[in-house]
Amino acid sequence: MKNTLPVPYIWEDFCLYVLDQRLLPGKVVYKKCVTYKDVAKCIKDMVVRGAPVIGIVSGYGMVLAVKQAKNLFSKKNFGKFISYAADCLLNTRPTAYNLSYTVNRLKNFILSHLDKDYLELLKLAEQEMKNVCNENSVAMEKIANYGVSLLRKNTVVLTHCNAGILACGDIGSALGVIIEGYKKGKIKHVYVDETRPYLQGARLTMFELSCFKVPSTLITDNMAAFVIKEKNVNCIIVGADRIAKNGDTANKIGTYNLAILAKYYKIPFYVVAPFSSIDTSIPCGEKIKIEYRSEDEVKYVNGKLITLKNAKVLHPAFDVTPAKLISAIVTERGVFRYPYKF
Amino acid sequence: MKNTLPVPYIWEDFCLYVLDQRLLPGKVVYKKCVTYKDVAKCIKDMVVRGAPVIGIVSGYGMVLAVKQAKNLFSKKNFGKFISYAADCLLNTRPTAYNLSYTVNRLKNFILSHLDKDYLELLKLAEQEMKNVCNENSVAMEKIANYGVSLLRKNTVVLTHCNAGILACGDIGSALGVIIEGYKKGKIKHVYVDETRPYLQGARLTMFELSCFKVPSTLITDNMAAFVIKEKNVNCIIVGADRIAKNGDTANKIGTYNLAILAKYYKIPFYVVAPFSSIDTSIPCGEKIKIEYRSEDEVKYVNGKLITLKNAKVLHPAFDVTPAKLISAIVTERGVFRYPYKF
Repeated sequence: MKNTLPVPYIWEDFCLYVLDQRLLPGKVVYKKCVTYKDVAKCIKDMVVRGAPVIGIVSGYGMVLAVKQAKNLFSKKNFGKFISYAADCLLNTRPTAYNLSYTVNRLKNFILSHLDKDYLELLKLAEQEMKNVCNENSVAMEKIANYGVSLLRKNTVVLTHCNAGILACGDIGSALGVIIEGYKKGKIKHVYVDETRPYLQGARLTMFELSCFKVPSTLITDNMAAFVIKEKNVNCIIVGADRIAKNGDTANKIGTYNLAILAKYYKIPFYVVAPFSSIDTSIPCGEKIKIEYRSEDEVKYVNGKLITLKNAKVLHPAFDVTPAKLISAIVTERGVFRYPYKF
Repeated sequence: MKNTLPVPYIWEDFCLYVLDQRLLPGKVVYKKCVTYKDVAKCIKDMVVRGAPVIGIVSGYGMVLAVKQAKNLFSKKNFGKFISYAADCLLNTRPTAYNLSYTVNRLKNFILSHLDKDYLELLKLAEQEMKNVCNENSVAMEKIANYGVSLLRKNTVVLTHCNAGILACGDIGSALGVIIEGYKKGKIKHVYVDETRPYLQGARLTMFELSCFKVPSTLITDNMAAFVIKEKNVNCIIVGADRIAKNGDTANKIGTYNLAILAKYYKIPFYVVAPFSSIDTSIPCGEKIKIEYRSEDEVKYVNGKLITLKNAKVLHPAFDVTPAKLISAIVTERGVFRYPYKF
């Protein structure tokens, strides 16, 4: 097993290479994307996942759309093509807000620079995406610092899914806080929910923590109550896919369970995310669109059926944790607390 | 897919045939047991699981021990052999109380009939096990009636693991209440936790419910909070592996999580089990021995690794739900409520 973490995407010579996170930790394979549709497919099929990285690769998808539209540039339908590409990317996954944040930012940027010549516009669009990435890096570092400031010494933390480097492109949101917290001597141990059905905890978070030599133990999601009690877990830290104006937070299915356990055990429950996950156009969690994914993603594990072939299955990819259950929301603009006003 | 449920064990001509529940619902295979050690291995390897059925097959293991000890009968070491067989069976799995209840009952029965001749003793031991099974049948029917009496019309229930026919040998404890409740028009829908890592919910409970045509939906364990809220689940029903004198209840890992969710949502949380699951020699849950099983049972699904090869894993097979979180414990002797006095 390699002890170095592959980067979740590479942008090179106007091509995007997306790490196939479904194959981790076993295999490191990059999918080459030369069109925005290639990127959309990678997002839809969960080759790439994690709200901040979905944002970044979708933004690069918009740069690819500009590249593809060279012959349309002098014509009226260039703008139409760009808008169409944006819609295609926006329709891949409905819950992660960073996706619409970045795609719309790039779309508006491109459409407001139609006075430039084509090559200049292409370079400007690429530069805008580099700005997005730089802002993301700066944000993640600030987030980690704010997050670590909340931790006491000897913190035993439980986390869910993967809100790390693979999900965020830089040091990670929730996992950034955990890894930085460990480096600063505040984190003693990390319990990792395997996170069914996609097993992002088992596959990705365990991998990232091992790369940074953070002491960690994998558990099945249903062990949380037992582990909090028996192993004195004193903090739960998770990421976010979309945060409503009032602080209600959509994150990977299973997050809500943990928030209720945290309340029962009276331990802090922290949400860690870049400000670009906050969607102030949505007043509360009930308005967040929850993505339902295929039943087969639950029924089959590694291609093998785990239940009756005709079993009915529910597969919401996310749940919404009410703001009241969240002790703090950590962003690059600081630590927010209930009642949330961003 | 067959729509008839195979019986969990067959006792025939002084041989025990144990259904390999690990292969369900895909394959129906029985393991032939001719010695008590064969039975012990089946219990240890989880060929057979579910506290009441573990009790029954272990009791038949004691009858097999008598059969094996024919040549020892006239000698002093017959009793020693019987005690040794009992210890071997008792050491297979530490948490299910029905195991020790039945093994000790058979052991004491056999040792108190050493005045009989060998063949008579063998038949008496077999008859005692038939008594155990009959008592179990009568108990399960009473339990179902008591349980159904607690249900309102249009109950939407969530259950965990498998406390049905495969686990109990007759109509089942928790699932007996659910299936009878459905027949009597009180149950509208059942949500089934897949129950990692052994997936008893996905494999066994979904199978049993489909055989009885009870409308059911499979979920991953971490969807419970979401499903209770979004699908108006208004009751949680589970089985038990061992209940302490004060009502604290050991059951399949993940049960404790659900009890906390039930408290949060203010919906009833019922434990359903035969009286032989109650261990009044243990004052409270802290004294219940929790079985830790192999890390590989979490790390591999259908033989495929789902995490890093060297990942550290915790695998408690059970957790203990505090009595205070249990709305009622349903037994064949009636419905008990907090504070529990059995």
